[in-house]
Amino acid sequence: MSELIGALSQTLAGITGSITGLDAEAVQAARQRQDSLTKPRGALGVLEDVSVQLSGLAGRCPPPAPTPAAVAVFAADHGVYAQGVTPWPQEVTAQMVSNFLAGGAVINAIAAEVDARVVVVDIGVGVPLEPHEALLDRKVRLGTADMTVEPAMTRDQATQAVEVGIAVARQLIDEGARCLVTGDMGIANTTASAALVAVFTGSDPELVTGLGTGIDQATLLRKIDVVGQALARHQPEAADPIGVLAAVGGLEHAGLAGLILGAAAARVPVVLDGVIAGSAALVAQALAPASTAAMIAGHRSTEPGARIALDHLGLRALVDLDLRLGEGSGAALALPLIRSAARILTEVATFDSAGVVDKEEQIVDEAGQ
Amino acid sequence: MSELIGALSQTLAGITGSITGLDAEAVQAARQRQDSLTKPRGALGVLEDVSVQLSGLAGRCPPPAPTPAAVAVFAADHGVYAQGVTPWPQEVTAQMVSNFLAGGAVINAIAAEVDARVVVVDIGVGVPLEPHEALLDRKVRLGTADMTVEPAMTRDQATQAVEVGIAVARQLIDEGARCLVTGDMGIANTTASAALVAVFTGSDPELVTGLGTGIDQATLLRKIDVVGQALARHQPEAADPIGVLAAVGGLEHAGLAGLILGAAAARVPVVLDGVIAGSAALVAQALAPASTAAMIAGHRSTEPGARIALDHLGLRALVDLDLRLGEGSGAALALPLIRSAARILTEVATFDSAGVVDKEEQIVDEAGQ
Repeated sequence: MSELIGALSQTLAGITGSITGLDAEAVQAARQRQDSLTKPRGALGVLEDVSVQLSGLAGRCPPPAPTPAAVAVFAADHGVYAQGVTPWPQEVTAQMVSNFLAGGAVINAIAAEVDARVVVVDIGVGVPLEPHEALLDRKVRLGTADMTVEPAMTRDQATQAVEVGIAVARQLIDEGARCLVTGDMGIANTTASAALVAVFTGSDPELVTGLGTGIDQATLLRKIDVVGQALARHQPEAADPIGVLAAVGGLEHAGLAGLILGAAAARVPVVLDGVIAGSAALVAQALAPASTAAMIAGHRSTEPGARIALDHLGLRALVDLDLRLGEGSGAALALPLIRSAARILTEVATFDSAGVVDKEEQIVDEAGQ
Repeated sequence: MSELIGALSQTLAGITGSITGLDAEAVQAARQRQDSLTKPRGALGVLEDVSVQLSGLAGRCPPPAPTPAAVAVFAADHGVYAQGVTPWPQEVTAQMVSNFLAGGAVINAIAAEVDARVVVVDIGVGVPLEPHEALLDRKVRLGTADMTVEPAMTRDQATQAVEVGIAVARQLIDEGARCLVTGDMGIANTTASAALVAVFTGSDPELVTGLGTGIDQATLLRKIDVVGQALARHQPEAADPIGVLAAVGGLEHAGLAGLILGAAAARVPVVLDGVIAGSAALVAQALAPASTAAMIAGHRSTEPGARIALDHLGLRALVDLDLRLGEGSGAALALPLIRSAARILTEVATFDSAGVVDKEEQIVDEAGQ
């Protein structure tokens, strides 16, 4: 914490200071239990790692079931839209919020399939929105400013947006959620993501800037140039995460960073969607390195910045199906995998209890003869 | 069909002759519908392909929900066990069948999580088994013979085992299943799988033989040698799929090939697990090339033969998490992904219905101005 530049608000300092890593005893117990189950050791690959992480996060083995799950879709607009980084009209952000609330979007269909709740958080859509029971009005400002001209937001607004995310995590957990899923909506938000990933991973803009929801080569080159301009103007420093958010971030990125910190503080797993979540997770990691203990990479987006972010976070994605939608779609698809990992560690019989001969035991016995 | 060597039984000829590929009209309708949904075109990657396949298989768009699902675990023993290809005791096959029936295995936990039924088919376990309501007694023989010494089974037995699989598919579909999942249990069955993959893909034994559930390097070398010996002895020809099964196959491989053919004939999707299913799918493809229309690769096993089989079948796996368990575990984990793909095509709003501006339409409009 002492390496951070810039003072944190009392709320933020309290949260980040409270976050600790995995419980070593529970991790060891989970590894041992995995090795006693009626299957070859290691045969469940990444699912074994997930079950161990869930145990270490909860501090007990087997871990509690990561249900119910809640998807929090943070929606906001971006001043950098003015630089022509996407062919989508900016009003699509608000239109898609209406679509989420009406239950007509992809995240609604996936959430219905995997039995997850969907909540939309207006943290900075560029226009006023009608009230709705599934919409949390947490607007910090009407979209960010154009990062190529001025900071995207003030430090205070960045802090406020992170605190919104922490509060949303608390509210969802208070309402019963035992697994949070990051979602996002914001036309032009992959541009802010690229800038954040560039700062926190020390990568060049051309390596972390991608096609987003689908742009042509000329727009991609412009987008890379826009990211480079913003970084050159603000010179954001990774050791000052709030400053980075203020300079080149988005309101949904700040909110998601807060959601992740809130989940980590409550020892509840948080499943990351694509590049928006990945860049927000880098902010969370910069604020509280141990928060990675709560992170599960739901999917591997086609966005290059998402892959670089996951590598930096040391996370392996569970779903890898060339998705590039956002909304929390890829992360929500991973929920049954995460639940299966927990259930296996909880329910599967051991060699002893099932009366199945264990290869390893037998080898030991034979060696002992 | 005329290229096949060796006569097929009347049942088999009837089934294989009835299998046709995807319905082109439904495929086109599904592609068009995907492009009208409120998301960037192509943003759902592989899930879009799955939804199109489901539509083409069912012959209508949107496709019916692929539920309920049934996992059929075909269990059998292998004479080639005598060649020392695995450190597991052979009695583990029967012990794991008991574990499945008691609900204590990994496939039971995953099936409970993803809401799938589990049925165990004794198609050739080496010892008599106690009756159980979830156990189908379809034993063709008490395990195969050692393929390095004699054919694994007779042609009639291979045909009978394939017909068992077809009948199991019919029974499960009659009982309500709208998605079948391949499962398997059989100590030493990756050796037979390697031999099958080698024959149908024209690959060398060392490329398709893997570590199975976990063997040391010396055992791997012996296993490769055993596969090579069996192929050299029998010289099986890919154009004679029943002959290949008889020479170097396993009873569960034959049963799974039948299950796949039965699913394809009924236009019901069948989700493939790892290398056992992959090699059985090669048999099904050899008997009825259009049967690949019904196949969905549930997961990508660490077994090299599984990957080579999927490449040969032209299938992309949905789950890729370093699993190497079998039992149907990887395939069952893919069910929520497949269901989500169908649900998205069915439930998500279109740009028109949701009042969301479509980027592509706008571009067309702008170009037209």
